[in-house]
Amino acid sequence: MTSLRSWFSIPRGSHFSLHNIPFGIISTPSSQRPRVAVAIGDHALDLQVFAASNGFSACSIIQPHQSVFSEPTLNAFAALGRPMHSVVREYIQSVFSKDTPFPDVLRNNTKLQKEALLSLSQVKMHLPMKIGDYTDFYAGLNHAYNCGCLFRTPQTALQPNYKHMPVGYHGRASSVVVSGTPIRRPHGQILLDPTAEKKVPTFSASRKLDFELELGAFICKTNKHGEPVPIQEAEQSLFGVVLLNDWSARDIQSWEAVPLGPFNSKNFASSISPWVVLADALEPFKTKAMENDAEVLPYLKETNPKSVYDIQLQVDLKTTAPDGKSSTITKTSGKHLLWSFPQMMAHHTVNGCPMQVGDMLGSGTISGTEPSEFGSLLEQSQNGRVAVKIADGEERNFLEDGDEIRITGVCGSDEDALVGFGQCVGRIEPAISLSIDG
Amino acid sequence: MTSLRSWFSIPRGSHFSLHNIPFGIISTPSSQRPRVAVAIGDHALDLQVFAASNGFSACSIIQPHQSVFSEPTLNAFAALGRPMHSVVREYIQSVFSKDTPFPDVLRNNTKLQKEALLSLSQVKMHLPMKIGDYTDFYAGLNHAYNCGCLFRTPQTALQPNYKHMPVGYHGRASSVVVSGTPIRRPHGQILLDPTAEKKVPTFSASRKLDFELELGAFICKTNKHGEPVPIQEAEQSLFGVVLLNDWSARDIQSWEAVPLGPFNSKNFASSISPWVVLADALEPFKTKAMENDAEVLPYLKETNPKSVYDIQLQVDLKTTAPDGKSSTITKTSGKHLLWSFPQMMAHHTVNGCPMQVGDMLGSGTISGTEPSEFGSLLEQSQNGRVAVKIADGEERNFLEDGDEIRITGVCGSDEDALVGFGQCVGRIEPAISLSIDG
Repeated sequence: MTSLRSWFSIPRGSHFSLHNIPFGIISTPSSQRPRVAVAIGDHALDLQVFAASNGFSACSIIQPHQSVFSEPTLNAFAALGRPMHSVVREYIQSVFSKDTPFPDVLRNNTKLQKEALLSLSQVKMHLPMKIGDYTDFYAGLNHAYNCGCLFRTPQTALQPNYKHMPVGYHGRASSVVVSGTPIRRPHGQILLDPTAEKKVPTFSASRKLDFELELGAFICKTNKHGEPVPIQEAEQSLFGVVLLNDWSARDIQSWEAVPLGPFNSKNFASSISPWVVLADALEPFKTKAMENDAEVLPYLKETNPKSVYDIQLQVDLKTTAPDGKSSTITKTSGKHLLWSFPQMMAHHTVNGCPMQVGDMLGSGTISGTEPSEFGSLLEQSQNGRVAVKIADGEERNFLEDGDEIRITGVCGSDEDALVGFGQCVGRIEPAISLSIDG
Repeated sequence: MTSLRSWFSIPRGSHFSLHNIPFGIISTPSSQRPRVAVAIGDHALDLQVFAASNGFSACSIIQPHQSVFSEPTLNAFAALGRPMHSVVREYIQSVFSKDTPFPDVLRNNTKLQKEALLSLSQVKMHLPMKIGDYTDFYAGLNHAYNCGCLFRTPQTALQPNYKHMPVGYHGRASSVVVSGTPIRRPHGQILLDPTAEKKVPTFSASRKLDFELELGAFICKTNKHGEPVPIQEAEQSLFGVVLLNDWSARDIQSWEAVPLGPFNSKNFASSISPWVVLADALEPFKTKAMENDAEVLPYLKETNPKSVYDIQLQVDLKTTAPDGKSSTITKTSGKHLLWSFPQMMAHHTVNGCPMQVGDMLGSGTISGTEPSEFGSLLEQSQNGRVAVKIADGEERNFLEDGDEIRITGVCGSDEDALVGFGQCVGRIEPAISLSIDG
């Protein structure tokens, strides 16, 4: 693949090459109403301004719909459907291409460049979607196996259902926040001595705060209540993908999670990266999912063998003390999933569950096979038993106050044609003091 | 308590006495845009029409906010807060009272009566709230114990955490439907022989479709992300209560639910009654929750010993064949809960989880101690082992196609002063035929 060239300066190595064109919600100090933009190199193209200045005049298909770019979320744009997302993305690519057929739209229009092209360092990013329901799956086979080994045995690590269905549970939509939002260490019930015969919990700030490296997929199509989305059509429901950090309090989790699953250990916060990389942009980076040695039921069978994304994922931990050194603690790939997003959608809706535009599906924690590829501290530290070494001789079992977790993800190797996600960052703030501390 | 008398004809035994004044969303054939109404006797008072005809002119506190009654959900009204709900409810009570101080508003205004008072048989009810997140708790101790006995032993029936926290999990908001909506029998994975060594699921329509008798509470107050709602303040977040049927596919549930909890077995549909009975109206019917012999952590301790509602709950099953006989299969009370809604809210937010106006909390299945008081067929039939006798010599282990489940709930014994919920009805439709049937 030859990389697309632009008349606009896009730094080499940028996640937001002309091959990407991710969508997000921005505001600026001078114009604080959130609206739609795309990222290109070090800049955001403000699509509200672009549309108002006849930026879409050369594209009659988009024009009747351009009010979606003034919305404070991407939901209305997403609801236009994947064919329209393709049209908009390809049109913007053509506007920026070196030999643009529409030079007067932007290349020769310095006034509009000034108004609509904003330095990324000057825009504030907002949550890209209004999320109706958030479902978190558990499709990272290595993660599921590692967790199973920690709490059971290698033989019983995976539950009997694991290879037959994308196991998942409902998460909390209201606590999904955009990258950069500080994360408060949560309080909750923890069991200090799980081996004691009489199990009496203690009220405490979590002492086992963890991150989870995941991908989040947004839905762009509604299915009628009662009617499944067949797996062959599920791709058309996939708007785009973000990086997802499903923060977890492991001590709260282990005490609360039987029999109904994780609750307070997860619902205090989940962070996502602000730029939604369209399913179209990720298409060239599809690869085979992990091998499943179980016979999968027909409703979960995909015809395309390539169904997951080879996204190079990385997690960095930066400490406040002594002077904020950063350590890479995880390097892995988005391909380490047993189930694809279309399979998750097919399973989610096979009982007629209605999906809505803006719903988010989490992949589950993505881990490779080596400790340096594990997508959580739970796995890396074996639930706190083995300290993970980080910069300056420091080590971590779990996250400490002031620690910052930075997830990055990028597809491709041509430095002029990367399709990246930017970053998903969150810094741990100390627990608030509660008068109800017991 | 003397019952309030009205100049308006309210049938004896009506759930919607002058003591109630529940809020709902209606439309009519001649005016199809959903809007706010209250129920009174056999009628709905259309508050949009009432407001537009100066119905609130005698109440200057409400007037500036009366646009909330033109909204298609109760969220905007709920967001005004409990003091305002009290003002509106009491004002409407005074307008309808026999010796109304405002006779010209409605009693002497036959034109407005004609326009705004609509027979309940002629209005269509809609989902009362736009639900952001739906959380289902498990606070029915008898239910939790019964289920535990079915799948474990009486000694291990309750998990160690059960008496220390209101155990709950996230449900699916998008599949909550209003009473009367048909319920499609869901497809899913089921394990026909759970005792087989090699566990291979079958794809099938559920063969163990069940109801769950619950109460649902709506939230009317937002808390800031990261900041818990102290239990003393939680009452102020409680908008009102509805009847809730959390339909469950027991065969799908038992195969999928370990380790992350119920998912497809629940998220195909949950039905709620259309009229939200305000927390104020339920206040006189508060009673003691079930005795908890565990020492509860301070953040869950209530000062008021009366914290749950003595609502007389009933479930009727009506068959299509041979000629639609109805059988009462459950009679119990809303008081059979170990945890109150304020305790659920305090627990839900103790980690800083943000609640939003319109969020719904389910109580969990409410069961008394006798089989005729159990709030699910799972318990009544002991997971299908003992047939439950219904009318005409028929019997049920689980629900069959065409069965209709009708939940009713009412507080009080004075037939002129009942505070009732009306009903929550759903009828099982056959599973759709799927080309993916395996």
